[in-house]
Amino acid sequence: MEFQLIKKSEKSSARLGQLRLPHGSVDTPVFMPVGTNGIMKAINFDQMREIGYQLILSNAYHLFLRPGSDVLKKAGGLHNFSGWDRNILTDSGGFQVFSLSDFRKVSDEGVLFSSFLDGSRHFFTPESVVEFQSIIGSDIMMPLDECTPIPIDYPIAKKAMERTLNWLNRAVDYYNQSIDKEKQALFGIIQGNKFMDLRKESALRTCSMDLPGYSIGGLSVGEDKEIMYEILAYLDQFIPENKPRYLMGVGTPEDLLNGVKNGVDMFDCIFPTRAGRNGTFFTPKGKTNIKNSMYKYDFSPLVEGCQCYACRNHTKSYIRHLFKASEITALNFLSIHNLQFLYDLMRNIRQAIEENRFEQFYAEFLDQYLNKSSF
Amino acid sequence: MEFQLIKKSEKSSARLGQLRLPHGSVDTPVFMPVGTNGIMKAINFDQMREIGYQLILSNAYHLFLRPGSDVLKKAGGLHNFSGWDRNILTDSGGFQVFSLSDFRKVSDEGVLFSSFLDGSRHFFTPESVVEFQSIIGSDIMMPLDECTPIPIDYPIAKKAMERTLNWLNRAVDYYNQSIDKEKQALFGIIQGNKFMDLRKESALRTCSMDLPGYSIGGLSVGEDKEIMYEILAYLDQFIPENKPRYLMGVGTPEDLLNGVKNGVDMFDCIFPTRAGRNGTFFTPKGKTNIKNSMYKYDFSPLVEGCQCYACRNHTKSYIRHLFKASEITALNFLSIHNLQFLYDLMRNIRQAIEENRFEQFYAEFLDQYLNKSSF
Repeated sequence: MEFQLIKKSEKSSARLGQLRLPHGSVDTPVFMPVGTNGIMKAINFDQMREIGYQLILSNAYHLFLRPGSDVLKKAGGLHNFSGWDRNILTDSGGFQVFSLSDFRKVSDEGVLFSSFLDGSRHFFTPESVVEFQSIIGSDIMMPLDECTPIPIDYPIAKKAMERTLNWLNRAVDYYNQSIDKEKQALFGIIQGNKFMDLRKESALRTCSMDLPGYSIGGLSVGEDKEIMYEILAYLDQFIPENKPRYLMGVGTPEDLLNGVKNGVDMFDCIFPTRAGRNGTFFTPKGKTNIKNSMYKYDFSPLVEGCQCYACRNHTKSYIRHLFKASEITALNFLSIHNLQFLYDLMRNIRQAIEENRFEQFYAEFLDQYLNKSSF
Repeated sequence: MEFQLIKKSEKSSARLGQLRLPHGSVDTPVFMPVGTNGIMKAINFDQMREIGYQLILSNAYHLFLRPGSDVLKKAGGLHNFSGWDRNILTDSGGFQVFSLSDFRKVSDEGVLFSSFLDGSRHFFTPESVVEFQSIIGSDIMMPLDECTPIPIDYPIAKKAMERTLNWLNRAVDYYNQSIDKEKQALFGIIQGNKFMDLRKESALRTCSMDLPGYSIGGLSVGEDKEIMYEILAYLDQFIPENKPRYLMGVGTPEDLLNGVKNGVDMFDCIFPTRAGRNGTFFTPKGKTNIKNSMYKYDFSPLVEGCQCYACRNHTKSYIRHLFKASEITALNFLSIHNLQFLYDLMRNIRQAIEENRFEQFYAEFLDQYLNKSSF
């Protein structure tokens, strides 16, 4: 993997760049839709390609439990298994071990946890997680990390940060010995909870390992948005500017804009597709819900001028009808629309950075998006 | 609507024909997928067009209750509302009044019933049902009929048949006065339960009205297949050969073949899509289920050589994984495959009739399809 920093904004930390990955180039800042089980929820890959996505996220925790490494190994990795011929980034599963499993026991060696599917016990180590992602064939892989909730006591956050760094060291050793770096890139994950000194230490020690990219973990877990923005602004100075920065788990329009403003290049989130499955769809004037009765006789598209499949072919009234009738296609249409909206947003962000008007775009977009007076 | 009978098989009652409808021509015998709420379940219209379907069925009962006639009227009919630019046949809702509603009260005037959605009371008359289908803009509409379960006592079956004929008379009067025949065709529905004399009487009296086509109702409701085939074979002689015959609610491969053999031109059924949503998929060697563990490591398509989206892009192992992970896309893939399978079956049937080898095709297909020794 290579990363080229193409341009830096003069008035903010916004950056324009390009990732050169084994399955094609990806312009940054980029939003990566999440296909937890090796597919987006309610959207097929043709529909993803039609929007234009070049890079998706999948999840090692889920894929490890189902279909399992034997199926993925026999299939020749997730690209072959799924038929997705573009890039895949995989989360290590660290976050899911902490968020989904009823039982876990963390030690310096690794983490013992129970499967959310059947309660069976499994043990993840920094090495095994890299090994499994090499079976997946992820273009970008994440190391095992320990993610703590916000708020939490300082000593616990510090211990988790230290453990994350120790685990990263082991992951890097294994990666250096066993993985073809041309085919798979390993990022480091910066932790430290909400404590600025821990964040700084984690960033400096993680970045000293000279990895292909750096993730910012443990944010967007329920804390105040302002805390997240503050940490991002603070971290900007500690991450080498020639390396991509990936803010994990972020995907609302306002968070994407604030992330970009603070120097983030990559984002992922389940929000746009989950929101779509709940009837929520993005518009330039904010998000709204298709169930709203004001759409009953609204024979215009979800968003006038939107080029997504749903907006080109259907109306709010029709999609509302389908949603209320529990038709699966409604979930497909709203998910497509939301992913198109974020794709277009990121393209517009990149263009604005290119044209030295990101800060203006940021202000205008958010002014319209967050002022929902029209609904 | 015009129907052209192109060819009759010499050794069976199989027929080749063409319907010329307001939204394009349709070759018969034809299978019509069901989009109860104005869309197929789990499949969008682009995917329907890609397979090749020219004619779908929707349901007046469901559309009357949701979105309701006001929405459909304001939208300018179901074609405009849904964006489906090809032909639509609508069932009158008679069957659903009897199968779905907790409460109904049938009189000569019409049928009072409770909505399956909210229990609200509604009254269907032969006239109102035609009027509502004119709002829908159905290319082919069905009259209100009284459908009885099999088995039932002769006097009840006879009374329902008489009422269906009376209702048809009123529907035809209303249709003649109020509907543009170039835009919408009204079929008659032959009832009579399993009683041959009632079926004969219903067929003769219905066909004496010289309508654009004739439906065969009240079959495929749980009776022995042999009874259905026998009734179809018997009815063949009473329906004018220059009119299309539509067997309502039928859609398994074996029933389609037997229907065609007995002179049926049109079929509809929810089975292929519902089966798909349950993991069942059609193959030339019979139907099977994707959950089966033998597909865990099967990296071949659902059916080798099948041209459907799912088979061109994905493997059994992958679709099994998605299905087990409750991914919506699995339902889409299996529904597409099953609809492609029936589309291909009907095309092969038409070609076999064209080439004077339908009976051979019938025997060979069923021999392979019903002999599931390979599973």
